[in-house]
Amino acid sequence: MSPVKVVSCSCPKPKLYGAQNRAFSIQHSAFNIEEGCKASPVFRRPPIASPLSVPQQQALTFSLSLSPGKGCQSSINLWLAPSPILLLLLPLLSLVTPISISSQGALSSFHSYSQSVAPIVAVRFKNGSIKCVATPPAQQTTEAYTTKVSRNANMGKLQAGYLFPEIARRRAAHMVKYPDAKVISLGIGDTTEPIPEVITSAMAERAHGLSTLGGYSGYGAEQGEKPLRAAIASTFYEGLGIEEGDIFVSDGAKCDIARLQMLFGSHVTMAVQDPSYPAYVDSSVIMGQTGVYQKDGEKYGKIEYMRCSPENGFFPDLSAVGWAEIIFFCSPNNPTGAAATREQLTKLVQFAKENGSIIVYDSAYAMYISDDSPRSIFEIPGAKEVESSGMNPWLAEGEAFSSWSPMFSVAIETSSFSKYAGFTGVRLGWTVVPKELLFSDGFPVAKDFNRIVCTCFNGASNISQAGGLACLSPEGLKAMKQVIGFYKENTDIIVDTFKSLGFNVYGGTNAPYVWVHFPGRSSWDVFSEILEKTHVVTTPGSGFGPGGEGFVRVSAFGHRENILEACRRFKQLYK
Amino acid sequence: MSPVKVVSCSCPKPKLYGAQNRAFSIQHSAFNIEEGCKASPVFRRPPIASPLSVPQQQALTFSLSLSPGKGCQSSINLWLAPSPILLLLLPLLSLVTPISISSQGALSSFHSYSQSVAPIVAVRFKNGSIKCVATPPAQQTTEAYTTKVSRNANMGKLQAGYLFPEIARRRAAHMVKYPDAKVISLGIGDTTEPIPEVITSAMAERAHGLSTLGGYSGYGAEQGEKPLRAAIASTFYEGLGIEEGDIFVSDGAKCDIARLQMLFGSHVTMAVQDPSYPAYVDSSVIMGQTGVYQKDGEKYGKIEYMRCSPENGFFPDLSAVGWAEIIFFCSPNNPTGAAATREQLTKLVQFAKENGSIIVYDSAYAMYISDDSPRSIFEIPGAKEVESSGMNPWLAEGEAFSSWSPMFSVAIETSSFSKYAGFTGVRLGWTVVPKELLFSDGFPVAKDFNRIVCTCFNGASNISQAGGLACLSPEGLKAMKQVIGFYKENTDIIVDTFKSLGFNVYGGTNAPYVWVHFPGRSSWDVFSEILEKTHVVTTPGSGFGPGGEGFVRVSAFGHRENILEACRRFKQLYK
Repeated sequence: MSPVKVVSCSCPKPKLYGAQNRAFSIQHSAFNIEEGCKASPVFRRPPIASPLSVPQQQALTFSLSLSPGKGCQSSINLWLAPSPILLLLLPLLSLVTPISISSQGALSSFHSYSQSVAPIVAVRFKNGSIKCVATPPAQQTTEAYTTKVSRNANMGKLQAGYLFPEIARRRAAHMVKYPDAKVISLGIGDTTEPIPEVITSAMAERAHGLSTLGGYSGYGAEQGEKPLRAAIASTFYEGLGIEEGDIFVSDGAKCDIARLQMLFGSHVTMAVQDPSYPAYVDSSVIMGQTGVYQKDGEKYGKIEYMRCSPENGFFPDLSAVGWAEIIFFCSPNNPTGAAATREQLTKLVQFAKENGSIIVYDSAYAMYISDDSPRSIFEIPGAKEVESSGMNPWLAEGEAFSSWSPMFSVAIETSSFSKYAGFTGVRLGWTVVPKELLFSDGFPVAKDFNRIVCTCFNGASNISQAGGLACLSPEGLKAMKQVIGFYKENTDIIVDTFKSLGFNVYGGTNAPYVWVHFPGRSSWDVFSEILEKTHVVTTPGSGFGPGGEGFVRVSAFGHRENILEACRRFKQLYK
Repeated sequence: MSPVKVVSCSCPKPKLYGAQNRAFSIQHSAFNIEEGCKASPVFRRPPIASPLSVPQQQALTFSLSLSPGKGCQSSINLWLAPSPILLLLLPLLSLVTPISISSQGALSSFHSYSQSVAPIVAVRFKNGSIKCVATPPAQQTTEAYTTKVSRNANMGKLQAGYLFPEIARRRAAHMVKYPDAKVISLGIGDTTEPIPEVITSAMAERAHGLSTLGGYSGYGAEQGEKPLRAAIASTFYEGLGIEEGDIFVSDGAKCDIARLQMLFGSHVTMAVQDPSYPAYVDSSVIMGQTGVYQKDGEKYGKIEYMRCSPENGFFPDLSAVGWAEIIFFCSPNNPTGAAATREQLTKLVQFAKENGSIIVYDSAYAMYISDDSPRSIFEIPGAKEVESSGMNPWLAEGEAFSSWSPMFSVAIETSSFSKYAGFTGVRLGWTVVPKELLFSDGFPVAKDFNRIVCTCFNGASNISQAGGLACLSPEGLKAMKQVIGFYKENTDIIVDTFKSLGFNVYGGTNAPYVWVHFPGRSSWDVFSEILEKTHVVTTPGSGFGPGGEGFVRVSAFGHRENILEACRRFKQLYK
């Protein structure tokens, strides 16, 4: 639909509605024309049918880029009442509080850059036409001051918001629209079960200790505390040639991905699975590694999208993949739930070695693997070649020294406590950079990563690290496995539900994600349909890349009763 | 001194020494010829007199880049016994443990990229010549595999290691050399006093809560929890036009500086105070904003170094500063301790506005200010211009709405709980990006920063955030101020000591750092002299930029008895 001009602007003191009125809905990013700032005030209708198919009689949502003469500063958001007669307009400053409360904080990324609008505009909606009935205050007509600092062009390449805050916004909007609905969130992939007490006790103890002379500690090593690094190495990499010094403890895999991108810089090329966790692509765009977004293919230039679909067993046809310096590979995969087999990963490592590429392997869901798929890329010969034959000739007889001489590496591995121990909010992860991994000039990658970690990071919270260490104690491991087992039961329930409804269902066995196929349908349409009709939040597959179109990801993170209730509703909807 | 070739290589099974022997010293970065890998094995003597002036009869330290034929992988480090007769050689794998213990973890950044050397070489030292008596194992002679990924050229521009890990290494080396000395660390600027119990209790409670259904929380908003953002806004920015939505809670100011650099990208130009906190310059180099390091001036190309010295009252002569898009400005300053006055900051803001620059203002030490210097850049008219006249015309009469219409901004402010609450290990900070701060095209900086925070970060630990909220409670604020008061007493003791010894001393009044002038001397020489003769670790001024040459920074973070003891030793040395 074409833009509709605001035809008149004059209104003395419109009332502020909305804070008490619950019958509105938000759809912030569905339609954002803020980029058009500097132009005359325009008002456009969002695409009604897509991405959210809200019946026109129920509620419509608008996003307005306001440029009152020369005083344009930011965007303003408008909400429509269900009745087409009256449009309620809310300046964000009054809206922030009630919305944030109802969304439990999920909207803060939203209003953090939207509440800047001072001029208040009331808009009436009538038969599809728009009429502005307010005028901005006089002082808004002065020229807005801008710095002379150019916006980073790479930021301008990014499409819409980061996926998960976007989902959170839609969820919040839905909750505002249906304040009495019991919304179940199987979208963001956020853990829901309490952290086992053996782990929280260790954190509480560490916290208490910080108030004592003996227990206080200040700056820790940027790479993490030595006992935790050692425990990670021995728990997850025993016999794989990975040692304590190869482990960099962090505040989470997402953060490490950004640091890895800083390390690689702007001149490398990337390959990603399609679909994949959006942080890989988005951080690549931010670092300037990519070209612009090509709307027709829904891809960024200069990124190799390795299609993973049911047709290829969710493992890319490597013969069709062009050369890329860095290959992001996530297994078990988010979002498809597919875990690559040993044979597949062996092919991947060979491919990387032949091409001289570096694999960045995301194993954040490895503990969800039920079958004999590898838990770590370093299980694959060649990912980190370990000298297995012979003893260290310099050791006296009888002194054993296993795996002391790894030869080379083609891989980095990043992982996290988030989905194992419910640490999504506690923040703790790690990245393995084998010291044998070398740039083309022979310089060790780990040495540069260490410099990044020391310069751009200051270590994970010491309290979180105490929790991580407790996770890896015998009791902690047992407790983590119980929580993981619980979520895996959830997965089974979801898989069974969709299978019983006749859907083709993927993932689930080795991952907390179920990848449901809706052939021929738009992911966002399905997402909206499910949300609207069942009040269950999922994640549209296309949010993970064009290869996710036609799929929806259902997360198994949830309380049991919610999973069961969601499945009942799915059965109702798709029976 | 010229390199000495390793003349022969053959030795069957040398013993591994060092783990039990305490009489060695490390000086890793003093001399690193790893870049020479691929060449024949070479062995060089470090510059004895500089940067550490270790008397030749006591101990010497060597760093060896080992390239045994074609199998070169990384560097190896050697240690000399004090006696010139015997040289003890330690493969890092055996060395790591004892060294790390003695250094309390500070060395981990060191061995994380040094323990990769498998071949063990024994070296004897005799009359200044070097003889290799071991040969690498046969399998080391195969060609080392390198990927085809080019090293990020920006990383290659960085000089040596990040300053503070380097200081930590030297401290650890000193402790190894003088195992019985009571080393006092006034170097890194790490807090030492326990965190007040009111704050740790809140963190422990939050940790415990995470093991309950009601208290569990997963992913929080990337920008921080709403109550904490609100508390930061009201505690530090009341009446300054900064609102909850402008606050981005983080895991520390250093991390936020890196994220700001990602935001700005590689095409901006920077200005920094000289001397200044090294993270500004180093992160700028990493992002590719700078030219190469120019050894003669000790500066990177394309950075504006704004000299701050006693001659100009530690405030730069802005008429001599070339145009830069981003101006990093830290007040109270690290390392000089100088707090800029209101008049000076007004000049700075005017300068930024005239030039269209963005100020990134680091106020991490603001609570240490004793006089009436501004605590925030937003106290300065123009840094964030607030419409003070008139009411919001859209509010009904009687509805007050202060600061509702800020007009523009030229500044970002970053700060931290680290030096207020002893949170150096807990990790919590924040950055203020006013929504009115606009790029040259009118795009809000905060909107891009929000995207960075959502894509490259996942929020600070929820437990740390609970601690931050407790810090800002009335009891927490009182307790923080007591701790700050304690450190400020330390500062007075240090200032008095150096003044009584006839030194020109700066800083101290408004900051936990004392900036002592040693005119005409090399900072690293003074650092070494103080360390060697008093076992007190300081920080050489030149580590903060060429403008710091001739100064040493003495941190006031320490237990009282250590401060007193250090001052006694200073008096002994410089009486």
